[in-house]
Amino acid sequence: MAQKPSIPKGTRDFSPIEMAKRNYIFNTIRSVYALYGFEQIETPSIETLQTLMGKYGEEGDKLLFKILNSGDYLSGVTSEELEDRNSLRLASRICEKGLRYDLTVPFARYVVMHRNDLQLPFKRYQIQPVWRADRPQKGRYREFYQCDADVVGSDSLLNEVELMQIVDTVFTRFGIRVQIKINNRKILTGIAETIGAADKIVDITVAIDKLDKIGIDNVNEELRASGLSDDSIMKLQPILSLDGANDEKLSVISGVLRDSEIGQKGIEECRFILDTLKTVGLRNEIQLDLSLARGLNYYTGAIFEVKALDTPIGSITGGGRYDNLTGIFGMPGISGVGISFGADRIYDVLNSLNLYPTDAVSSTQVLFINFGEKEAVYCLTLINRLREAGIRVEIYPDSAKMKKQMSYANNKSIPFVALIGENEIKESKITLKNMSTGEQNLITIEEMIDIVANSTE
Amino acid sequence: MAQKPSIPKGTRDFSPIEMAKRNYIFNTIRSVYALYGFEQIETPSIETLQTLMGKYGEEGDKLLFKILNSGDYLSGVTSEELEDRNSLRLASRICEKGLRYDLTVPFARYVVMHRNDLQLPFKRYQIQPVWRADRPQKGRYREFYQCDADVVGSDSLLNEVELMQIVDTVFTRFGIRVQIKINNRKILTGIAETIGAADKIVDITVAIDKLDKIGIDNVNEELRASGLSDDSIMKLQPILSLDGANDEKLSVISGVLRDSEIGQKGIEECRFILDTLKTVGLRNEIQLDLSLARGLNYYTGAIFEVKALDTPIGSITGGGRYDNLTGIFGMPGISGVGISFGADRIYDVLNSLNLYPTDAVSSTQVLFINFGEKEAVYCLTLINRLREAGIRVEIYPDSAKMKKQMSYANNKSIPFVALIGENEIKESKITLKNMSTGEQNLITIEEMIDIVANSTE
Repeated sequence: MAQKPSIPKGTRDFSPIEMAKRNYIFNTIRSVYALYGFEQIETPSIETLQTLMGKYGEEGDKLLFKILNSGDYLSGVTSEELEDRNSLRLASRICEKGLRYDLTVPFARYVVMHRNDLQLPFKRYQIQPVWRADRPQKGRYREFYQCDADVVGSDSLLNEVELMQIVDTVFTRFGIRVQIKINNRKILTGIAETIGAADKIVDITVAIDKLDKIGIDNVNEELRASGLSDDSIMKLQPILSLDGANDEKLSVISGVLRDSEIGQKGIEECRFILDTLKTVGLRNEIQLDLSLARGLNYYTGAIFEVKALDTPIGSITGGGRYDNLTGIFGMPGISGVGISFGADRIYDVLNSLNLYPTDAVSSTQVLFINFGEKEAVYCLTLINRLREAGIRVEIYPDSAKMKKQMSYANNKSIPFVALIGENEIKESKITLKNMSTGEQNLITIEEMIDIVANSTE
Repeated sequence: MAQKPSIPKGTRDFSPIEMAKRNYIFNTIRSVYALYGFEQIETPSIETLQTLMGKYGEEGDKLLFKILNSGDYLSGVTSEELEDRNSLRLASRICEKGLRYDLTVPFARYVVMHRNDLQLPFKRYQIQPVWRADRPQKGRYREFYQCDADVVGSDSLLNEVELMQIVDTVFTRFGIRVQIKINNRKILTGIAETIGAADKIVDITVAIDKLDKIGIDNVNEELRASGLSDDSIMKLQPILSLDGANDEKLSVISGVLRDSEIGQKGIEECRFILDTLKTVGLRNEIQLDLSLARGLNYYTGAIFEVKALDTPIGSITGGGRYDNLTGIFGMPGISGVGISFGADRIYDVLNSLNLYPTDAVSSTQVLFINFGEKEAVYCLTLINRLREAGIRVEIYPDSAKMKKQMSYANNKSIPFVALIGENEIKESKITLKNMSTGEQNLITIEEMIDIVANSTE
């Protein structure tokens, strides 16, 4: 009756070494979030479909994993509904729960449900898996972690500044050199307003983004094809040929948008964030980039994105300011700003640049060889002392052949092996073998604690 | 269109303080597991129903959360199948995935799928949520965490010994006094064999368990009612009146089971585990308890259970040895032994005994008051230095009324508040207020780092 087991497509098992690396990523992000006063929350993996549906667009609704009601889920369903064979409609009759699709909607739901207990501004972070019934492909999974931090209940741009400092600190700790890109939705709105094409923001940002690849003439051609008037295209030229430092860019934009109130507001916001970050000092470069338009329908102020400099991969972190996060749940007027680290991509970058610190991914430090029951029991007392000193120790549980035990140590990359036979017991000493140098010494337990605890391996 | 949001019954949101407490529990368990050479793995939340079904009994199958297939899940379903209205059968046609019910079956699946990459014996731990469509009630949730450690691929009783040391260490670190109970399935089999009632193990253990409450005469009455012969009941008397130290109990049992090979094997195993633990030294009491029969159909050797001594709550940890974990997935002959900490109950015990260490549940250490944009930006550079020293700092993002900012600090139990106005900027100093004493001092940044870093609060 044996089945050959498998896991659902788009899901993954994580082995010990993969877990160690992932924990290193999560712990680094977590500790930086904590330094900035963000506090962790968790929400259930399962939300009601009422909470989830209609929040991610029509496409998103289709990508929700729905959970079949327990018990006799067909009892309230009419024969007509069954015969109708409308999968989507029937789903809403036999499922009332679904798996979390992101961390933002559950967070909004959390804020509304707990509003009486919350201290605003509320700085929360959340590191949990989300599920999407997307077509799996390289680097895209059906279950993956998000690492979000958001501040809600404060309009202050200091929040944007601190989020950029968090990004800068996290990637500095990882040793990943990044470029931070920043934009502002209000500037984009101002541009569209100024050139008289309020509905063309997306086309304009796409065009700006292509500038490097296809050149200004082709970009103008595309803009014309997308319905922009010659007059609009002409007005857009200084924006398209924007270059130089952030300050210079802002001056040019400010000139173009001199008559747009919202545009000027966006410029002012950008300037404050960039100036303050200059005062505080970032270790990575931050660049104003008008082609940055992620989540355009969602963000209302600053927009951020982070790219790794030394390896070709897409965005590894993003975020921005949004208004009215909680409006959909009946609590209007709450502004928020947040970032989200892409843990899976950061994992790939750290792997490809080989940046994991050795001590973050090492497990057992000493293996005691098992020479038989009597010797093994004798070892246990010594092992106690090592563990009390914080050293991670294993004893091979069976008195297997020496070769087998040594290859266990080798395969697990355990840096030290302790051998205690009759002689060692008589002398109250330990033979300690350094697995990388092959060196072997007869020493006391105190000496051993000293050597292992101070080993960098 | 605003909905009043809610979460599915049996699920929970975890607030920052709850998360801090939970993280303290998980981190403590995790770090002890690591000291003993256990390595972490994670498996997907979603498994195929083929992996899950038939592993938890008929009742368990009903408690699985099933996930509706994506897309047009009705396309392969015939009209007959729909009209049949057999909820269970239809579910298997429209769902092929379900949520993890425990960590053991996914672990078995993991071992089989990755057998070629695994170094046996494999010592793994796993801390992840599981889901059960149980009727929710106080202390029973539909989503809860399990914290399992198992060793597979080793028959050695040293594994049992180390697992008991782990239990002892974890609860010592928590400050929870516990009693560890141990039993052995082979002894129970031996008893049933000896009294000639192999099918009555459950009745016998239930009877032993009731002894304290209803007395020996009533217990014998119940045994008779459950079909045991007078002869069997007579032979059972020395076992029922078992008392004293573990050694004495084992002698008595050994006498009764002198003709049972499997019984003697169980006694020998128990004796080795208890003797070795005596040599190594436990800080909590361990007691042989023949009424312990958890998961009887599952365990084949040692059985463990842990009870808190100072608060009335059920078992807070349990485990045992099982054979043939992976047989169901086509890989027979792999023995394992494991334990599982009940995080939710440990949480309740720590709460009711008020045992959380202050530093485990504290978040922000200093709040900088925001007196306006200029002062705030000035503060950011000082805050950088504090964070570089590892101190968790917030600046109130808006220049709100002093009272509002102070009450934010109060409500979040932030121990220090820093005030920097014009005077402080001129003198390059900081006014630091200790929120519990009310004391307020004008000091340098170096002095401040010193005071906050060395504060125990």
